[in-house]
Amino acid sequence: MTATLGRRLAAEALGTGFLLAIVIGSGIMGERLSGGNPAIALLANSIATGCGLSVLILIFAPLSGAHFNPAVTLSLASLRIFPWNEVLPYVAVQIIAAFAGVAAAHLMFGEPSFFASTKIRTGLAQWWSEGVATFGLLMVIWACLRGRLAGAPYAIAAYVTAGYWFTASTCFANPAVTLARAASNTFAGIRPEDAPGFIVAQLAGGAAATLVMRWLSAGERGDRVAG
Amino acid sequence: MTATLGRRLAAEALGTGFLLAIVIGSGIMGERLSGGNPAIALLANSIATGCGLSVLILIFAPLSGAHFNPAVTLSLASLRIFPWNEVLPYVAVQIIAAFAGVAAAHLMFGEPSFFASTKIRTGLAQWWSEGVATFGLLMVIWACLRGRLAGAPYAIAAYVTAGYWFTASTCFANPAVTLARAASNTFAGIRPEDAPGFIVAQLAGGAAATLVMRWLSAGERGDRVAG
Amino acid sequence: MTATLGRRLAAEALGTGFLLAIVIGSGIMGERLSGGNPAIALLANSIATGCGLSVLILIFAPLSGAHFNPAVTLSLASLRIFPWNEVLPYVAVQIIAAFAGVAAAHLMFGEPSFFASTKIRTGLAQWWSEGVATFGLLMVIWACLRGRLAGAPYAIAAYVTAGYWFTASTCFANPAVTLARAASNTFAGIRPEDAPGFIVAQLAGGAAATLVMRWLSAGERGDRVAG
Amino acid sequence: MTATLGRRLAAEALGTGFLLAIVIGSGIMGERLSGGNPAIALLANSIATGCGLSVLILIFAPLSGAHFNPAVTLSLASLRIFPWNEVLPYVAVQIIAAFAGVAAAHLMFGEPSFFASTKIRTGLAQWWSEGVATFGLLMVIWACLRGRLAGAPYAIAAYVTAGYWFTASTCFANPAVTLARAASNTFAGIRPEDAPGFIVAQLAGGAAATLVMRWLSAGERGDRVAG
Repeated sequence: MTATLGRRLAAEALGTGFLLAIVIGSGIMGERLSGGNPAIALLANSIATGCGLSVLILIFAPLSGAHFNPAVTLSLASLRIFPWNEVLPYVAVQIIAAFAGVAAAHLMFGEPSFFASTKIRTGLAQWWSEGVATFGLLMVIWACLRGRLAGAPYAIAAYVTAGYWFTASTCFANPAVTLARAASNTFAGIRPEDAPGFIVAQLAGGAAATLVMRWLSAGERGDRVAG
Repeated sequence: MTATLGRRLAAEALGTGFLLAIVIGSGIMGERLSGGNPAIALLANSIATGCGLSVLILIFAPLSGAHFNPAVTLSLASLRIFPWNEVLPYVAVQIIAAFAGVAAAHLMFGEPSFFASTKIRTGLAQWWSEGVATFGLLMVIWACLRGRLAGAPYAIAAYVTAGYWFTASTCFANPAVTLARAASNTFAGIRPEDAPGFIVAQLAGGAAATLVMRWLSAGERGDRVAG
Repeated sequence: MTATLGRRLAAEALGTGFLLAIVIGSGIMGERLSGGNPAIALLANSIATGCGLSVLILIFAPLSGAHFNPAVTLSLASLRIFPWNEVLPYVAVQIIAAFAGVAAAHLMFGEPSFFASTKIRTGLAQWWSEGVATFGLLMVIWACLRGRLAGAPYAIAAYVTAGYWFTASTCFANPAVTLARAASNTFAGIRPEDAPGFIVAQLAGGAAATLVMRWLSAGERGDRVAG
Repeated sequence: MTATLGRRLAAEALGTGFLLAIVIGSGIMGERLSGGNPAIALLANSIATGCGLSVLILIFAPLSGAHFNPAVTLSLASLRIFPWNEVLPYVAVQIIAAFAGVAAAHLMFGEPSFFASTKIRTGLAQWWSEGVATFGLLMVIWACLRGRLAGAPYAIAAYVTAGYWFTASTCFANPAVTLARAASNTFAGIRPEDAPGFIVAQLAGGAAATLVMRWLSAGERGDRVAG
């Protein structure tokens, strides 16, 4: 990460934008082709997201760290792996780019740039689900950083593919993604009024993961995470 | 594995709990969305389990060894790779965490914490199937340990994904998982009265694999497994 | 790439031919078996293409560079990674081999060697989609070259699998492939009169990616790409 | 391969037996669950075979070379990578173990040990398809041997998963597998009278690949294959 902040923000923007284009675009394609069987649409959506996300992390990790996610940026800052004074520009760029990615996908599929979702995703079970999803996501990222794993892009992507299925909320696990998906009335959408509940749950799950990770690694020699 | 026993048991618990949440959760999601086509549900279930399991092993192997499975713990102890005096706490934690994972998944999907399965899985063909499944699983784990393979998490996960399809019993291959799945009347469940037969078959398959592995590696230079 | 030009062209031809056989063949098989559900056919088509492409790159990258794609050859030449005087023979061989691959697939499935597609793929949304698809493809290839990644074959293949779903045009992203698919009136076809629009969009997307890549990497030490 | 011939044959037998159990078992499971949609059954069959095969190669390659296939054994012998005097015992064991694997799968699914298939797979298009399939398989294996690739198990498995879809014959590409699949009247079966045509086509494709590989690698420094 020797690149200037401007170049790193550009990389973060390209990655987050492409991520949303992949999530929304493959959701639309899956729903249009699946003949009313939502499991087939979600299979396509989850496989495409996993494959695409792994590649985005591979491309952009050396440039910006490839967070694409305010919950990740915040957690890394609180673990002192990422500088606090860059959190605000990173999060701002993630949110803006996420909306741009939604518009790019809608343009490909002949939909209006933005239109509010009507998909209900609320209630305790959904919030618990988002908390679990974000908790797990941060555990994976943390394990990859600790072990300096070359396979990190694939591990994170595999987690998200699994998350689309094993969490009842299909593993948004990302506040920027949640906001932008509220602007898409398609397969992957969420009602704008349901977004805040998701985001609170995500931040709570992320905070819990950060605490657990600190405790689990306390017994290890040196501080490999902060290295 | 320089961490204290307490931290290692916590890691083993988190991993086993997440594994069950993935198995049960993706089974529920798959069945709900697949419009009555069980092959589509099992596709989702097997892909999500494979993706998720690979990540769990990646995260927790450096902390606890990532057994998540009494049959694995027993086999490694009898091969002198794992200390006998830690077998009991590991197995106890695996079983308790497996039930907690089931409850976590049920909570996400708005189901009661535990409810006994009514899914019949019994008879000679099913037992033979579980024996084969566990035999193969232990062969994979053993090969990964022998070769100190970096790709071990993916190999073990790929085996389980295949196992969901090529064994008639969908490759439980894990006594703790079997007990906990008896408490879920969903896609991935098993009747409580059928669990003992599965567990006996799993332990028999595990014992057979342990014997074959010893013989196959007897001709090699040194004892790389116990290294 | 110490092999003679003749051997490298032979490798490029074998790879491109197999790529088209995989794209067309798995499209035919998917459509014939899927009982009228195009999402299932595209799932098969995208998984088979991803698996097959990764293997083709693995085999032929050490022999010819494994471009299989005039847009890639042109971009690498303009980045001075590939010699300009070999662009024409590479592109010619790619196009000829692509048609041969289509014929090989048609022969396997009992279809005539070539027959013009009647599948309409045109309009601004489709062209934007092809531009995005090719932009992303070149970003991936460039990131793999920069990092000299051993996992390059899998990254490129994963991108294409995702692209089949997240782009509305199913990610042709390759002028040679586009021309040859116009000669196949099957699942993966495109009307001959729609091919030029796709190719212009692909070249525009490729040029945009080349410019962005230059800017993003300008701040790095040395010129690792041209190394 | 310092193990005794007996241990290597045992490894080859275990691997080939498991391969057939996976091919046949996942075919039965896919067909039973897919509600009459053969594309869904083939998706399951191809994903399970790919996942399973990668693991089998990973386990048994260090022990026996993990051929599991007379066409591979013959090709490696003619490239002087494998000793001619062990070809006969390897091929014999592969065939016997393939039948045992079929019986093991049938036993899991409550079918009779062996029953002749009635599935017609014959004609020029099918033979051409098997020739292409085996040609490609040997190219992959050869590329993996040349590059001493750690990812060889995944590359070979990915090729077979793709082959299930892009070849009209679903990529048997293995004489031992062909003979054994003739004894299974299930999804993956082939009529006994159609087996000889498949085997001749496989051997022809294998011989063609062996010639092409020799020519393509002739221009390289040293003889890395025979190293």
